[in-house]
Amino acid sequence: MALWGGRFEKGVDQFTQEFGASLEVDKSMAAQDIAGSRAHAKMLAEQGIISAEDQAAIDEGLADIAAQIEGGTFAWDVNDEDVHMAVEGALTRNIGTPGGRLHTGRSRNDQVATDIRLLAKDLCDQLLSGNRALRRVLLDVAEKNLDVVMPGYTHLQHAQPVLLSHHLLAYFWMFTRDHVRLVAARDAADANPLGAAALAGTTYPLNRQRTTELLGFGRTIPNSLDAVSDRDYLLDLEYACAVSMMHLSRLCEEIVLWSSTEFGFITLSDSYSTGSSIMPQKKNPDFAELTRGKTGRVYGDLMALLTTMKSLPLAYNKDLQECKEGPLDAARTLSDCMEIAAGMVETMTVNADAMLAQAGTGFSAATDVADYLAKKGMPFREAHRVVGELVLYCEKHGKGLEDLTAEEFAAASPLFEEDVARDLDPAGIANARVTYGGTGHDAVVVQLGEARAALAADEGRVA
Amino acid sequence: MALWGGRFEKGVDQFTQEFGASLEVDKSMAAQDIAGSRAHAKMLAEQGIISAEDQAAIDEGLADIAAQIEGGTFAWDVNDEDVHMAVEGALTRNIGTPGGRLHTGRSRNDQVATDIRLLAKDLCDQLLSGNRALRRVLLDVAEKNLDVVMPGYTHLQHAQPVLLSHHLLAYFWMFTRDHVRLVAARDAADANPLGAAALAGTTYPLNRQRTTELLGFGRTIPNSLDAVSDRDYLLDLEYACAVSMMHLSRLCEEIVLWSSTEFGFITLSDSYSTGSSIMPQKKNPDFAELTRGKTGRVYGDLMALLTTMKSLPLAYNKDLQECKEGPLDAARTLSDCMEIAAGMVETMTVNADAMLAQAGTGFSAATDVADYLAKKGMPFREAHRVVGELVLYCEKHGKGLEDLTAEEFAAASPLFEEDVARDLDPAGIANARVTYGGTGHDAVVVQLGEARAALAADEGRVA
Amino acid sequence: MALWGGRFEKGVDQFTQEFGASLEVDKSMAAQDIAGSRAHAKMLAEQGIISAEDQAAIDEGLADIAAQIEGGTFAWDVNDEDVHMAVEGALTRNIGTPGGRLHTGRSRNDQVATDIRLLAKDLCDQLLSGNRALRRVLLDVAEKNLDVVMPGYTHLQHAQPVLLSHHLLAYFWMFTRDHVRLVAARDAADANPLGAAALAGTTYPLNRQRTTELLGFGRTIPNSLDAVSDRDYLLDLEYACAVSMMHLSRLCEEIVLWSSTEFGFITLSDSYSTGSSIMPQKKNPDFAELTRGKTGRVYGDLMALLTTMKSLPLAYNKDLQECKEGPLDAARTLSDCMEIAAGMVETMTVNADAMLAQAGTGFSAATDVADYLAKKGMPFREAHRVVGELVLYCEKHGKGLEDLTAEEFAAASPLFEEDVARDLDPAGIANARVTYGGTGHDAVVVQLGEARAALAADEGRVA
Amino acid sequence: MALWGGRFEKGVDQFTQEFGASLEVDKSMAAQDIAGSRAHAKMLAEQGIISAEDQAAIDEGLADIAAQIEGGTFAWDVNDEDVHMAVEGALTRNIGTPGGRLHTGRSRNDQVATDIRLLAKDLCDQLLSGNRALRRVLLDVAEKNLDVVMPGYTHLQHAQPVLLSHHLLAYFWMFTRDHVRLVAARDAADANPLGAAALAGTTYPLNRQRTTELLGFGRTIPNSLDAVSDRDYLLDLEYACAVSMMHLSRLCEEIVLWSSTEFGFITLSDSYSTGSSIMPQKKNPDFAELTRGKTGRVYGDLMALLTTMKSLPLAYNKDLQECKEGPLDAARTLSDCMEIAAGMVETMTVNADAMLAQAGTGFSAATDVADYLAKKGMPFREAHRVVGELVLYCEKHGKGLEDLTAEEFAAASPLFEEDVARDLDPAGIANARVTYGGTGHDAVVVQLGEARAALAADEGRVA
Repeated sequence: MALWGGRFEKGVDQFTQEFGASLEVDKSMAAQDIAGSRAHAKMLAEQGIISAEDQAAIDEGLADIAAQIEGGTFAWDVNDEDVHMAVEGALTRNIGTPGGRLHTGRSRNDQVATDIRLLAKDLCDQLLSGNRALRRVLLDVAEKNLDVVMPGYTHLQHAQPVLLSHHLLAYFWMFTRDHVRLVAARDAADANPLGAAALAGTTYPLNRQRTTELLGFGRTIPNSLDAVSDRDYLLDLEYACAVSMMHLSRLCEEIVLWSSTEFGFITLSDSYSTGSSIMPQKKNPDFAELTRGKTGRVYGDLMALLTTMKSLPLAYNKDLQECKEGPLDAARTLSDCMEIAAGMVETMTVNADAMLAQAGTGFSAATDVADYLAKKGMPFREAHRVVGELVLYCEKHGKGLEDLTAEEFAAASPLFEEDVARDLDPAGIANARVTYGGTGHDAVVVQLGEARAALAADEGRVA
Repeated sequence: MALWGGRFEKGVDQFTQEFGASLEVDKSMAAQDIAGSRAHAKMLAEQGIISAEDQAAIDEGLADIAAQIEGGTFAWDVNDEDVHMAVEGALTRNIGTPGGRLHTGRSRNDQVATDIRLLAKDLCDQLLSGNRALRRVLLDVAEKNLDVVMPGYTHLQHAQPVLLSHHLLAYFWMFTRDHVRLVAARDAADANPLGAAALAGTTYPLNRQRTTELLGFGRTIPNSLDAVSDRDYLLDLEYACAVSMMHLSRLCEEIVLWSSTEFGFITLSDSYSTGSSIMPQKKNPDFAELTRGKTGRVYGDLMALLTTMKSLPLAYNKDLQECKEGPLDAARTLSDCMEIAAGMVETMTVNADAMLAQAGTGFSAATDVADYLAKKGMPFREAHRVVGELVLYCEKHGKGLEDLTAEEFAAASPLFEEDVARDLDPAGIANARVTYGGTGHDAVVVQLGEARAALAADEGRVA
Repeated sequence: MALWGGRFEKGVDQFTQEFGASLEVDKSMAAQDIAGSRAHAKMLAEQGIISAEDQAAIDEGLADIAAQIEGGTFAWDVNDEDVHMAVEGALTRNIGTPGGRLHTGRSRNDQVATDIRLLAKDLCDQLLSGNRALRRVLLDVAEKNLDVVMPGYTHLQHAQPVLLSHHLLAYFWMFTRDHVRLVAARDAADANPLGAAALAGTTYPLNRQRTTELLGFGRTIPNSLDAVSDRDYLLDLEYACAVSMMHLSRLCEEIVLWSSTEFGFITLSDSYSTGSSIMPQKKNPDFAELTRGKTGRVYGDLMALLTTMKSLPLAYNKDLQECKEGPLDAARTLSDCMEIAAGMVETMTVNADAMLAQAGTGFSAATDVADYLAKKGMPFREAHRVVGELVLYCEKHGKGLEDLTAEEFAAASPLFEEDVARDLDPAGIANARVTYGGTGHDAVVVQLGEARAALAADEGRVA
Repeated sequence: MALWGGRFEKGVDQFTQEFGASLEVDKSMAAQDIAGSRAHAKMLAEQGIISAEDQAAIDEGLADIAAQIEGGTFAWDVNDEDVHMAVEGALTRNIGTPGGRLHTGRSRNDQVATDIRLLAKDLCDQLLSGNRALRRVLLDVAEKNLDVVMPGYTHLQHAQPVLLSHHLLAYFWMFTRDHVRLVAARDAADANPLGAAALAGTTYPLNRQRTTELLGFGRTIPNSLDAVSDRDYLLDLEYACAVSMMHLSRLCEEIVLWSSTEFGFITLSDSYSTGSSIMPQKKNPDFAELTRGKTGRVYGDLMALLTTMKSLPLAYNKDLQECKEGPLDAARTLSDCMEIAAGMVETMTVNADAMLAQAGTGFSAATDVADYLAKKGMPFREAHRVVGELVLYCEKHGKGLEDLTAEEFAAASPLFEEDVARDLDPAGIANARVTYGGTGHDAVVVQLGEARAALAADEGRVA
C-alpha cells in the first residue's frame, strides 16, 4: 500500500507546488502579514509613493481580509504558494489596481522577515506570560507548604533534610532564568527589516523609521542583506524553549518519582492522571511523562534550525522557508507544557507525613552529627571518619542514628553528649541552615520575599 | 492577542484531554491498527479464547470500519484519546458485546507497538521504492552523459577533470548505502510484540507465533518488557532518513552551485525552478534549496527521539507517545525529497560545453604533467616542484598550461617533449584513469554495469 | 588572564599550523597508516611500478617506525601536519630515495580514508567484544536470580509482578540489537578506498583488488570520488554507539533508582560507589550516573558529524578532517561504559526480600483479579470496573488487596471465591504468564536458552 | 589488537578510578579553584570560623601551589579524583592541620560550581575580546573596499549588484549579535554559589555576600539547591558559541565559493592556504573549510549538555561532571575560528575587477529596468512581465540587457528612452539604493558610522 500514493496521480506540477508551498504553516502569521502590509501602505502614502486614495482602498481591503480570516470565512487557495500571495491575490481581486501597488518597494524577502519577527514577538509575549503563571503557582505552593520537611537528595541518595518550599523555589529560580532568555529572544526579534526589499534596499524613497514606529518595532535593521537573511531571533526563541523544557523535564522527573509507590510523596489530582485499559489499579502520571518526553521535540527543533542555517551564503535562500515550523512547534509545546506543569503542581496533594518519615531515614543527619563533633573541636576530617563508622555500625545492627543509645554514641566518641539529639531531628537539621540561600525556615522566608519581588518586577517589565 | 487563547475557554478537562491525545498522528496508523486487531481476534478464536461467532462479528465490524476510514466517512471523535480507543469504541457501538471481547489478552501497550511496527515496515517499503527510483534516474542520466567532461573538485578547487557520469555515479553509490540502512531499519521493525500485553505477558493461552504469521512479521519478540518499551526500529528508520537527507543535501548543494551564473553547468527545468516577485530575471533552484534545508528537520527528528528515549526506566512510559510523529515526518520528508531530486536530475539540461571549458582551466592538468615527468624518471616530489613553479609562471603571465610553448616547457625541464600535449587535454586526462573505480571511460563503463547489477539485486530483494 | 594567550606569541604561522593539524588525533591511527603503506608498496612492486629493492627498503623502514611508535620512542614533530606526513617524513629521512617512491599512485585523500576505515573496523571489533562481555554478565546475573520477584512497572507505577531475570533479559535483547548495529557499522567500513588517489583514480596500473586482499578488506570501492568523500561508516559507528549509550542510560537510571533508600532493591559494590567529602553516610551510584551523563557526549558526537557532512560538495573537503575525533570519542566512551555497566551489574547485591515486598504492594495483583472475574464469565470491561472500585475501597481503608476478607470480596462480586488468593500472590501472578516471551518461570527458562544461543552465535560470527 | 587493552591489566580499581576522575579537564580550572579557596578561607577567618593564623597559612600555601601550577612544577597525581582533591591534598601535605580546616562549611558541590562559574566568565571575556577583534577587521576591510561592486545573490543567483563593503557589514552585524549573546552568557555565570555547601546551606555562620565580593561575582545565588545543580550558564555559553560558529560557517562558505576558479572573487593569502601532496597547482582554502567543519563539533557540544541535563532530579548528580569538557571545547573552538577568520579576511586579496565583471552579468539590472518602467507609470506587475520577456529575448540571442539597442528596448515598450542606460550600470544600480540600510555608497557610509559606534560601545562595556 502506497501511503502517500495519491500524490502520484497529481502530476509533477501539483506535487512540486505543494512541496514548495508553505501556506499551511504561514496561516499562523496571517494577522502579522496584514499588519505589516497596512503599515507599509500607510508609509508609502505618507512618502507620496502611492496616492492617499490607493492607500485607503488597500487599508480597507486588508481590514476586510483580516476580518474574514479571523472569522474563518477566508477562502484559502492551495495554489497560493504562501500567505503573502494569498492575501495580496485576494486584495487585488477585491479592490483592483490599487492592490497591485501595495508591493511597491517591497519584496517577499523583507515581507516574510517582517511577518516572522512580529510573530516571534507575539510568541515570546505569550510564553513570558505562561512562564510567570507557572512561577506564581510554584510560589503559592511553596508558601502553602513552607515547613514541610522532605529528604534532600544528591545522587538520588538521601543527603540532608530540606524544606519542600526550598525545593520548589529552586524551580522558581530556574524558570526565572528562562524569563530572562525569553526577554532576550523577544529583544532579538524586535527590529524592523521592512524596506530591505529583495536584499539590497530599494530606489523608492521609503521611510523605514516610520514602519518601525507603526509596527511597534524597537529599532530598524541597519543592513538590508542581514535583514533578509538573519534568523538568529528564531534560534534564540527555540533555545529559550529548549532550556525551559529541560527545566520542566527535571520537575516532571521528580513528579514521576514522587508519585511512585516507593516514594509516595505526592498524589496527583485525577485531572492530571490517567488509568490503564487493562490494569484497574493504575493512576499514571501521564502528563508529567508526556511533558518530559516532549523535551526531545524541542531539542530537535533547535537542532533542525541550527542545521538548516549552517553554511548558507548570503542573502535569502529558500532553505529559510524551513525556519517557520520549528519555532511555532517549540513555542506551542512549551506553552502547553508550562500550563500542564502549573496545573499539576497546583492540584497535587502533598503527603507531608511520608516526606517527613523519609527525611528521617537514610542517615541524612550524618553531616550534622559530624559538624556536632567538629564544633566541639574535633578536626572535620576526623569527625567525618567517626560518623562514617557509626553509620556502618547502624547498618549492621539495623538501626538509624536516632535509635542509638547514649552509650553507643559515647563509645564512638566521648565528645557526644545528650544535646546531639537536636542534630538528629530532620526539621531541626533543615531549619538550622539559615545563612542566605539555605533551607532553614528563616532563610526560606527571606527567599520567598525575593522571589515575590522578582516575579513582580518581571510582571511589570513587559506588562 | 493570545495566539492559542481559545484554549483557555475550554476548561482544564478539554485542554488536558487534547494535550494527552495522539489521535491526529494516530490516524496514520489506522489501517495497521485494524489489521492487528483482526489478526488478534482470529488467533483468540483459534485458541478457543473467544467464540467463532464473536470473531466473525469482530472481523466484519472491523472491515466495515476500515472501509469507512478508507472512504473518509468514519466519524473521528476528539474525545477518543487515540486510534485504538476510536476503533474499539466504534466497534462496540456497532456490534455490541463481542466488541468488548476483542481486547482480551491484549493491552494498549502491545497494541500500539504492533501498529507502529507495521507502519514502520510500510514506511520503509515506500522509502526503499523511492530510493530505487532515484537511483534509476541517476544511472540513466549518467549513461546519457557518459562522456561529458567536467572539472573534478577537491576543496571546491579544480583538481583533475572527471566524467560527469562518474560524478553522478558517486551519488548512486551513496544512495545504495541508504538502501542498506533502510533494509536494516525494516528488519529491525519486523518482529511481533503482540501478546506482551501490558508488560509481562498474559495468563491467556495466546499463540503468539500465529499472530506473527498472520501479520507477516519475520519473528516474535522473546521478551514482553522489551516488546512494549523498544523503539529502536524507529531510531533506525530516522537515522537512515537522516543520512539519506545528508546525501541529498550534498547533491542539492551541487545543483545550486551548478545553476549559478558563475558555474553555469546545468539549467534546471522550469518545473523545478521558481521566479521572483520583484526580480524579473530570476530562475531560482528553490527545490534544491528546500531539500537541502529540510535536512535540518530530519536531523532534528532523530535528535528528538534519542533525547526522548534517554534514561527511561522499563517498561512502557507515556514519553513513548512522542515517538510517532518524528518518524512519520522524517519518512514523509525523505520520500518527498527523493522524488524532487529524481525529478530535478532527470529534467535538468546539462551544459556540456561549459563543463568542458571549465575542466580545461584552473591548471587541473598539473598532476598529469607531473606524472609525465615522473614516468620519465624524475622523482615525483621533484616533478611536483617543477610543475608547481610552472603553474606560478603561468599565473604571472596569464596563461594556462595548454598555452605554454615548447620552449617554455623545455625551460622548466628538458624532459618535456611534444607528447606532453596529450597530458593537457581534459578528456584525455580523465580517460587515462582506467584502473577499477577510476574516472576513465572504460572504467566507468564497468562501473555502470556493476551499478545496474546492484540496482537489479535491490529490486529483487524486496519486490 | 588570557587563557590561551601564549598562542599570540607564536605568530600566525605556528597558530595556523596548529589549527590545521590533526597530528594528535591521528596518532590513534598510526598502526593503520603504516599497514596501509606497506600493502600499497607491496602492490606497487608486484605491479612493477617500483622495484623490489625499493619495496624491501620501504617495508623494513616502515616496520622500524611501527616498532618505534609501539615502543614510544618515535619522535613526533608538531610541524608534521598529520600522521601521513610524520611517517613518510621519517621514512625518507631514514631510508632516502626509496621513501619518496612510496606515495606513487596515491594521495593523502585515499590514504586517510584507508586509515580511518581500518581504524573503524578495529574499533567495531573491540566494541563487539565489549558488547558480548556485557551480555554474558546480564545472562549470568539473570540466571543466578532466576526466581527473584520484583514489581514490574509502567509509568514507574507498579503494574504487575515480574521476575528480575526477565527484567534483566530485556536489557540483554537491547544490547543484542546493538551488536547488529555494530556489525553493520563494521560492514560499512569494510571496503577499500586505496587507489582512488586524490579523487579520480590514477594513471598508474594499480591493482586495487590486491591491496583489498592484503589489508583484509571485504570489497573494493567502485567509485573513486565516493571513496575519498564517503564517511557514512563513521556515522554508522557513532549511531550504533549512540543507541547503545541510550540503552545504558536506561539501565543506569534503574540502577540509580534501585540504589535509592526508597527503592532499596540493590546495594552496589564498594568498587562501584563513592562517598562524599562532607556527608559521612553517602554511598553514591556515581558510575551509573556518569554513564548516564555520558550519553550526552555520544549523541553530541553523532550530531557533530551529521552537521559537518551536510551540504559538502564532492569530493574531498578539509571539513572531513573533523570526522576523526568524534568516532574515537564515541567508541572509547561506549567501550568504557559497557565495561563499567558489566562490573556494576556483576558485583551488585540483589535485595530479593525488598523486591518481593514491594511486588506485593501498589495493587499490582489487580489485573489478575480482574482476569479472575473475566474467566468466570464477567465481561472484562465490567471486571475492570469492579476491581477498580475494590482498589478505591482498599485505599480508603488503608489495605492492600491481600488484606481483604472473603466478605469484602463477596460484597464486590459474588463470583469471588476462596481461590482468588492464588491470584494475589506476586510470585504466583508472575509465574502464571507462561506464553512465549512472558515473565513466568517456565517462559523465562525458554528465553534464557534462546539468549544463550544468540550470544553463542554472535561470538562465533566475528570470532 | 586491543586498542585500549592496557587498561585491562590495571585491575578494576584503577579503571574505575580513571573512569570517575575529571582531573585532566579540571586542570583548566586550577587557577579558579585556588582563587575560590583563598576567598573562602578569608571569609571564614573574618567570620571567626577559623583563626587568622590558619587563614594566613592556608593563603600562603595556596599561593605556593598556584605558583607551582603556573610554573609547571606542580606534581599532579592521577589518584586525585579532581582538581579540588589535588589542591587540598597538596595543601594539607604542605602546611598540615590548617589545610584540613579549609573545607569547613563547604562541599565539593558548591566548590566545583564556583570554579566553573569563574572559568565561564573568563572564557566569555576571552571570546568577547576575540569577537571584537574580528569585527574590527571586518570594518577595516569594508572601509578599505567601500566602493567595490559585486553581485548580490539570492538563491545563489545574481539578484542585484551590491557593494562588497555592504556585504561584509552584514557579517559585522551578525557578530555584533553574538557579542550580545556572549554578554548574556557571562551575566548568567556571574552569580556566586559558594556557601550552598552540599545542597542545603550550612550551619556555619558564613557570609556569602563577602565571598561574592572577594571573587568579583555580580550577585549571590538565593537558593542552595539551585546553586549546586544549575548549569544553565554553560548552556548559554555553548549556545552563544554555536550561533557564532553558524555565522562563521556562512562566512567561510562564501570564502570557499569566492576562492573557486568559477567565482575568482578573492585570492587567499598563502598563510591561509595549503597545497596538495599530489596536485602541484592546488591552493586550497583549508582554513575556511576547517572552520566550517568545526561548526559541527560546537553544535554537538550544545546537544551533549542539553541531553545530559535532561530529566535530572535535584540536586547534584554525578552526570554534571560531564558538563565541563564541552564548554571548554566550544569556547576554544570558537576562539580559534574567530582568529582564523579575522586573519583570512584581513589578508585576502580582493579581485575587484572580477567582482564588477560578474555584477554586470546574470541580468541583475532587471529589477531596476522594471522600476524604470514603473516610475514612468506602468503598473509594477506589468513592468515585471515586460522585463521578464526582455530577459528571455536576451537569453535567446546571447545578449545581456546592456547589449540591447534602443530599437530593441523600444520594441519591448515605448516607455524606454535613452536614460535607461543609467539603470544598467552595476555601480549605478547599487548606489541608487540609499534609504537607511541600503547598499548605496551614501547609505553604507552611514552604516559604517553606526558600526564603528556599536563596536566602540562594546569595547567600553566590558573593558
